[in-house]
Amino acid sequence: MEVHVDRDAFLKGLQMVHNVVEPRQTLPILANVLLESDGDTLRLTATDLEVGARVSVPAKVPAGGSITMSARKLLEIVKELPAAGLSLKVQDNAWVALRCGGASYKLVGLGAADFPAVSSGEAAAWITLDGKLLRDMLAQTTFAISHDESRYALNGVLFAVQEREIRLVATDGHRLALAVRPLAGAGGQVSGIVPRKAVQEIARVVGTGEDVQVAISENQFILRMPNVLLLARLIEGAFPNYEQVVPKAHPHRVTVGRAAVMAALRRVSVLSEERTKPVKFTLSPGLLKLTAYSPDFGEAEEQIEVQYSGEEMTIGFNSRYVLDALGAQSAEQIVMELKDGLSPGVIKSFEEEGSLCVIMPMRI
Amino acid sequence: MEVHVDRDAFLKGLQMVHNVVEPRQTLPILANVLLESDGDTLRLTATDLEVGARVSVPAKVPAGGSITMSARKLLEIVKELPAAGLSLKVQDNAWVALRCGGASYKLVGLGAADFPAVSSGEAAAWITLDGKLLRDMLAQTTFAISHDESRYALNGVLFAVQEREIRLVATDGHRLALAVRPLAGAGGQVSGIVPRKAVQEIARVVGTGEDVQVAISENQFILRMPNVLLLARLIEGAFPNYEQVVPKAHPHRVTVGRAAVMAALRRVSVLSEERTKPVKFTLSPGLLKLTAYSPDFGEAEEQIEVQYSGEEMTIGFNSRYVLDALGAQSAEQIVMELKDGLSPGVIKSFEEEGSLCVIMPMRI
Repeated sequence: MEVHVDRDAFLKGLQMVHNVVEPRQTLPILANVLLESDGDTLRLTATDLEVGARVSVPAKVPAGGSITMSARKLLEIVKELPAAGLSLKVQDNAWVALRCGGASYKLVGLGAADFPAVSSGEAAAWITLDGKLLRDMLAQTTFAISHDESRYALNGVLFAVQEREIRLVATDGHRLALAVRPLAGAGGQVSGIVPRKAVQEIARVVGTGEDVQVAISENQFILRMPNVLLLARLIEGAFPNYEQVVPKAHPHRVTVGRAAVMAALRRVSVLSEERTKPVKFTLSPGLLKLTAYSPDFGEAEEQIEVQYSGEEMTIGFNSRYVLDALGAQSAEQIVMELKDGLSPGVIKSFEEEGSLCVIMPMRI
Repeated sequence: MEVHVDRDAFLKGLQMVHNVVEPRQTLPILANVLLESDGDTLRLTATDLEVGARVSVPAKVPAGGSITMSARKLLEIVKELPAAGLSLKVQDNAWVALRCGGASYKLVGLGAADFPAVSSGEAAAWITLDGKLLRDMLAQTTFAISHDESRYALNGVLFAVQEREIRLVATDGHRLALAVRPLAGAGGQVSGIVPRKAVQEIARVVGTGEDVQVAISENQFILRMPNVLLLARLIEGAFPNYEQVVPKAHPHRVTVGRAAVMAALRRVSVLSEERTKPVKFTLSPGLLKLTAYSPDFGEAEEQIEVQYSGEEMTIGFNSRYVLDALGAQSAEQIVMELKDGLSPGVIKSFEEEGSLCVIMPMRI
């Protein structure tokens, strides 16, 4: 194999695939990135056997072929190279000569034959999504993914397509985040739980805002863009019935400025206990009072003017969960829907932008 | 005590003193900051019994007095407060009421009587230094402070005043960094080893570039600025004879662009062993070749044009030490002075800006 590639394009490709490589692998070759070249393309592939990523970079290819190399070392090297043409040439015993500017490397390679097969990403049905839309939906849900490894089905985001609508849902049992958007065309009826690692990779690659195509098969999630392919094995297991979790008709509705309540929550929660960060919300007509208490350091109180005309009520929340939910919204005015001190609260934007977060209350 | 103070000024004061507070203390009150007010000033003091810091902030003082409070919690709170007037009022049982904007806190305080005495910073003789000059000298030396706690005398920077000159020196036995500047007036003949923590605090407070006054007594270092006082107990012990360490007449002199050699070193050292990062320097007329080798990943080579007319020679260095020394210079052209592959090398700027670094070679 011999290829000539632009250093910046190669670096961008490496950065896109290298996160898939696990720092500790069972198979040594999984530490490597697979480089394949033919025609006018250099393809970079990485996999951990659960999640795979493939990026194509334009290249001049005097000699097609393939090789694998340490993904981490290659990235470290290419990061430091000057912005210029870069050449790779496979030599005897899988040595790879890399040249760029005044730098020349002779790197240890490993034959491509032992690299695990990564699917070429064929699927029967594709859904087309705006990249920015998908990124927003992920930002509105991923924070609620469970970190409890014993609740495996919650360690990802549910992608659920229902005809002309796509829904993303994540929950850790304490809060549930839901994002809903209409689809341009019919999408059929498919769903799957995409693992956290793949979700993070998706969020990274859709940053450019290009259109993306998504397919969900029985056990695989595929995302493709013109030069990028992401594959993930779906999490097996039953996702909770999220529609049952979302309260339909809470009687109390509070409207409040998002920035003001976030700032006040941050201030008050400095004095709440570190692990669960409890803050008490006390509502009375026109006023929200936030309070927190620490036996070691003292107590904090903050009053915020809100739009509220219901009865007086008190409810406690983990302030981190409320800050996460508010941070995932972008509207200036947000709405909290409450029933009583023991029922979950709902946070969404005043203008109904297709996402909400349900948060379980805490006894305070 | 009751004081009214500007939130931004109070925050800046807290940020200046809070680093002195150790996360884990033997005495609980050392976790606190001492607040003292009288006249039109609020004084903030923190100490770990080795290093002390005191900052004065303009304030309205309806009632003078003093109190101590958790430095960490107070900083966390004040960070989140809006930019506005802030009031502190000591109440019964050392409770402190803090109000700012819509936020009100009732914080646990501890009487000032138990706070350790921090000297008011009197000294017989002061040396006046430009703040920026002191900051530069620290940047040119602190990187070489030893982290080996068994070599206590090397855990700081030697400040040595010799009449009309001030020298700062740090060494860890593998490299030695020296910065020298002329003094405006006579400074006498004093010296002392200032511990790393105090050095870091000095670097923080002299950032503004104001003039500073420095005094070194038998066992104490004092730095004062109009509203800031820093005190540090000097490290006892003998500092190595640094003048003996600096080679006087190395025959080989290499002149090279600082940015170019730093970039090349970073690239090549990706393939050198992680712990001591060895890189081989091979000199021939007009050319510097840098090489590194990793049994697992391969080898790297880079050639740089240099001004050199001496004989061919080879020397190995820990590339981190060379990068530290080059990073501490600001000139575009730097000079390496070498004797042979077994003698220490000297790195300094081409224009002789009053600092240099001596680095021990490695066998490669």
